[in-house]
Amino acid sequence: MQAYDFDIATAVEQLGDRWQGEIAEGWDMGGVPNGGYQLAIASRAILAATERHDVIGLTATYLSPGHPGEVEVEVEVLPTRGKRHSACAATLLQDGVPTVVVQAIVGELPTAGEQRLWEASPPPLDPPEQYPRLMPEPPSILPPPLARHVELRLPPEQVEFTVGNPLGAPSVTGWAKFPDDRPLDTLAVPVLVDAFPPAIFNTGTIGWVPTIMLSVQVRRRPKGPWLAATFKSHFIDDTYHEEDGELWDTNGTLVALSRQLALAPRSA
Amino acid sequence: MQAYDFDIATAVEQLGDRWQGEIAEGWDMGGVPNGGYQLAIASRAILAATERHDVIGLTATYLSPGHPGEVEVEVEVLPTRGKRHSACAATLLQDGVPTVVVQAIVGELPTAGEQRLWEASPPPLDPPEQYPRLMPEPPSILPPPLARHVELRLPPEQVEFTVGNPLGAPSVTGWAKFPDDRPLDTLAVPVLVDAFPPAIFNTGTIGWVPTIMLSVQVRRRPKGPWLAATFKSHFIDDTYHEEDGELWDTNGTLVALSRQLALAPRSA
Repeated sequence: MQAYDFDIATAVEQLGDRWQGEIAEGWDMGGVPNGGYQLAIASRAILAATERHDVIGLTATYLSPGHPGEVEVEVEVLPTRGKRHSACAATLLQDGVPTVVVQAIVGELPTAGEQRLWEASPPPLDPPEQYPRLMPEPPSILPPPLARHVELRLPPEQVEFTVGNPLGAPSVTGWAKFPDDRPLDTLAVPVLVDAFPPAIFNTGTIGWVPTIMLSVQVRRRPKGPWLAATFKSHFIDDTYHEEDGELWDTNGTLVALSRQLALAPRSA
Repeated sequence: MQAYDFDIATAVEQLGDRWQGEIAEGWDMGGVPNGGYQLAIASRAILAATERHDVIGLTATYLSPGHPGEVEVEVEVLPTRGKRHSACAATLLQDGVPTVVVQAIVGELPTAGEQRLWEASPPPLDPPEQYPRLMPEPPSILPPPLARHVELRLPPEQVEFTVGNPLGAPSVTGWAKFPDDRPLDTLAVPVLVDAFPPAIFNTGTIGWVPTIMLSVQVRRRPKGPWLAATFKSHFIDDTYHEEDGELWDTNGTLVALSRQLALAPRSA
């Protein structure tokens, strides 16, 4: 079996009542490991502990940034009344200190089924091959090193905030897949929803945008290597803003929703 | 000091390393205590444990329905790198069994400040006094008993799903306050975002809509007794749907956002 980059970077091993993994180098933004990537590590331990296949509802609260190196995951499987789902509370620890806490609802998701959309539609994108790939160009901090591990292809005007030409509204859209064409599953969703540039950059305000909480709802096992994504912010306060994301497969089916609570951009 | 209904129903008392409260009769829907009300009890314990004033980010996962009677709240204050926020994990227990788990970011919110809206605006409602109040009419299960404790005033067409005349789209809008005019604060937000009829009822599908997860972002200390609310679902699958809510004050400021992950309506 081929070892895919994402699977290696999120592998966990059970050690007694905990799970042990490694936050890999290079899945970061400005040295801070990507929040969705850390949530994927927790999710892998949660699926293993519950013997379930799919993450359905996830929320992570980020306590401190974390760093590359050893990470432990404590998973507490919680009692639920029904059998449809398992519920977990999980904690990521580095150097013995909790860095991320996670709540999860896991179970089994379909690959197809009826889906009714209301005031919603997939983003109007051309096929991914028609857009350039975002690649890190050190010493520039944008795009971040994470873009080596998640292939992002965006219409060029979506990322012209880097050259002082933002769209003028807090939104961003484009395609994502793993560079090694790892088949997608629900475990990949947390990292894909957190891999795009912050939508708020397209207002012209660029800086460090710390995520406080990230929540994800997954509706389908994704098919194919590519997902189309749209992220928007609607309510930007002095201190806080949200970013709402949608992931769509190439058939126009909604695969997942995300919502972040984040701080306003600060000087990097 | 006047004892307001909401404060009595959410009171907690510290007993050693736990907080003890009571899930009151009548804050329910079909006998199941309202999820937002249960989250408000947890939030009160969290604010007390952290000596903070405002809930800012909350997520609750509902494990089992709970029932009126004694409830315990375990609050774990988590280490955070900065001092702006406190973070907590909390668990509601009844009869010694966890029924709801909560993650919270708490701190201090402003009553005013700059707020930029994008593709967003307050709902176009007339003043609340111009709409009838929803009042429980047993043996009908709609409106639920909770409507005695949260005063809801909605344009009549918003609730004609009860007489077979739904709007035809998953949305609902109207006004909410406490009947005794208790001044609003951020602690009131969880119950206000979960007090309205499910938006999905306005597609014509009425039934039991169990909430799996409820998350709330609060941006402002609310002013005045009334808040205007809008709830919409955009993605309705066979099994799951989300409901996104907005709470606005009478000045047109966004006070809070909510998102539910809920099951599709089932026979009551």
